[in-house]
Amino acid sequence: MPERIGKYTINLNNTPSIIGYGAVVGKKEADGPLGQCFDKAYNDAFFGEKTFEKAETKMQKMTIETAVKKSGLSKKDIQIAFAGDLLNQCIGSSFDMRDLGFCFAGLYGACSTMALSLALAGIFVDSGAAKTALAAASSHFCSAERQYRFPLEYGGQRSPASQWTVTGAGAAVVAESKENTPHIEQVIIGSVRDLGITDVNNMGAAMAPAAAQTIGDFLTDTNTKPTDYDLILTGDLGATGSALLKELMKEEYKIDISSVHNDCGMMIFDLEKQDMHSGGSGCGCSASVVCSYILNKLSNKELNKVLFVGTGALLSPTSAQQKESTPGIAHGVVLTA
Amino acid sequence: MPERIGKYTINLNNTPSIIGYGAVVGKKEADGPLGQCFDKAYNDAFFGEKTFEKAETKMQKMTIETAVKKSGLSKKDIQIAFAGDLLNQCIGSSFDMRDLGFCFAGLYGACSTMALSLALAGIFVDSGAAKTALAAASSHFCSAERQYRFPLEYGGQRSPASQWTVTGAGAAVVAESKENTPHIEQVIIGSVRDLGITDVNNMGAAMAPAAAQTIGDFLTDTNTKPTDYDLILTGDLGATGSALLKELMKEEYKIDISSVHNDCGMMIFDLEKQDMHSGGSGCGCSASVVCSYILNKLSNKELNKVLFVGTGALLSPTSAQQKESTPGIAHGVVLTA
Repeated sequence: MPERIGKYTINLNNTPSIIGYGAVVGKKEADGPLGQCFDKAYNDAFFGEKTFEKAETKMQKMTIETAVKKSGLSKKDIQIAFAGDLLNQCIGSSFDMRDLGFCFAGLYGACSTMALSLALAGIFVDSGAAKTALAAASSHFCSAERQYRFPLEYGGQRSPASQWTVTGAGAAVVAESKENTPHIEQVIIGSVRDLGITDVNNMGAAMAPAAAQTIGDFLTDTNTKPTDYDLILTGDLGATGSALLKELMKEEYKIDISSVHNDCGMMIFDLEKQDMHSGGSGCGCSASVVCSYILNKLSNKELNKVLFVGTGALLSPTSAQQKESTPGIAHGVVLTA
Repeated sequence: MPERIGKYTINLNNTPSIIGYGAVVGKKEADGPLGQCFDKAYNDAFFGEKTFEKAETKMQKMTIETAVKKSGLSKKDIQIAFAGDLLNQCIGSSFDMRDLGFCFAGLYGACSTMALSLALAGIFVDSGAAKTALAAASSHFCSAERQYRFPLEYGGQRSPASQWTVTGAGAAVVAESKENTPHIEQVIIGSVRDLGITDVNNMGAAMAPAAAQTIGDFLTDTNTKPTDYDLILTGDLGATGSALLKELMKEEYKIDISSVHNDCGMMIFDLEKQDMHSGGSGCGCSASVVCSYILNKLSNKELNKVLFVGTGALLSPTSAQQKESTPGIAHGVVLTA
């Protein structure tokens, strides 16, 4: 049964399990340091489709099918799916759900979507609202770049703080507690925080304050310290945002997370060799890293307790053009071996 | 505690209450048959802001503040908010949440969002994941028209099946069961259904099959018949979609819902006098009708049991341009006196 502890955190007392998970990525991600961990990688940015948007839908669908297959269940056993992406009106998710046939609750949490979907899937299973729930998220460099920034053909120069939208998707099947599988023990749904960042090429700075707030609130609620976790893993702050997060944690909460912090956006690429500037970003960044490398490490008990904090920048091209600053949000889930 | 019955339906056994609700609309909606039911109406489509997008954010924020005030709670008592809208990257919701400070789970269900947010808020409260949860949704004619269709200045002719995006927002505060308030007794999360509609001016036809499926599944799961409800209320099928829904229900399920069916899109406008073609649409359509007229009638027991089925068309301008058909989705909640 879900039970609130402290101000914001929810304990999942039945500790639902992640009984299957999968990740599918593009070429650049396969060439990165985690390349061997993903279930599938495509060299073709179109994934055999006619448009990048259809490619993203196909990638997310393949990822979900992989996760369901690895869970040992069949598609008809999935009682509800939570998923989202970055495309306008979330068509990356809606269109694969058309084929998959799951009961579907669409989410929009920008790049925090994987954490949000895991949190809701966990609560549904913990409470009995579902026996099995799917969580998924995706992003695609080409569909994101042309929607948020410039036509791909433009080839503009990128600023040092800029990040590279990951072409990737991750999915996890959450079910009743089962031995020898990773569990979701706690979740925290974050609130929007905006420190006034207006540089649309510095999403790490826009998201870091929300990440600091969610991590700070969570540690306070649970009366734990960073070293109680093997890893505090943020979604896609990149190098710039990660540095800011550590500063903010010290300044606002007097907490040093340096020794246990890492960021999916810095893990998925070799920033130097792959010329990735601040790192990876997009819903698919944390989704693909968590649903491969991280859940692998939890499955074989190389990691025992991970606080995964998905981070999202809640801007749109319209809001940016209308001179709004960029609000951030961060949602957390505790994953245990 | 949430408990699954049948294949898709979830019973909320603690029957959470809607302890406060509110609706704010624009001029055309205030001039319609339900004009007297809304909490506030603005003649100025800009709501005093500089852009239509900021106007929508302001409208949703005012609506939420109205609902919270009417619940007798203060903003800090709200433990989680579920909200969404039609704007790219859901900025209508994200930007008001920046000011409101709630823990925020962003949803995208197109025009089904009010039903989805009520369903999730109900499940959170029923399960103990939250003591209080807010559900909200909005749409704005001007921000939607220029994003989905044409510049407002263009003044194109509208086809007979076309609908008019409602400028309106609705919000409800869900809390533990309390006497003499409307309750949420059951919810059903629908799945995506696509019968191949490609006319982007006929959203009613695109959504009707999903509505039929959700209503059919729900009646099967609960072993109830249409006349067990005072009202089966769809979100925004309009005249065209409502006629199709009734046909589909007869054809696919051998069920006649005519005697108890109504549609928010047909209720909010006088289709003839206001020249509204097929009726109203948009997240704000069912949100503003349910969070005013319908919850008023349940509060004073003129209605006792309503199956509210929010309906969404999951297209984007990009998917339509790429020749995709329009998938629909429908989520249901049973509201009782």
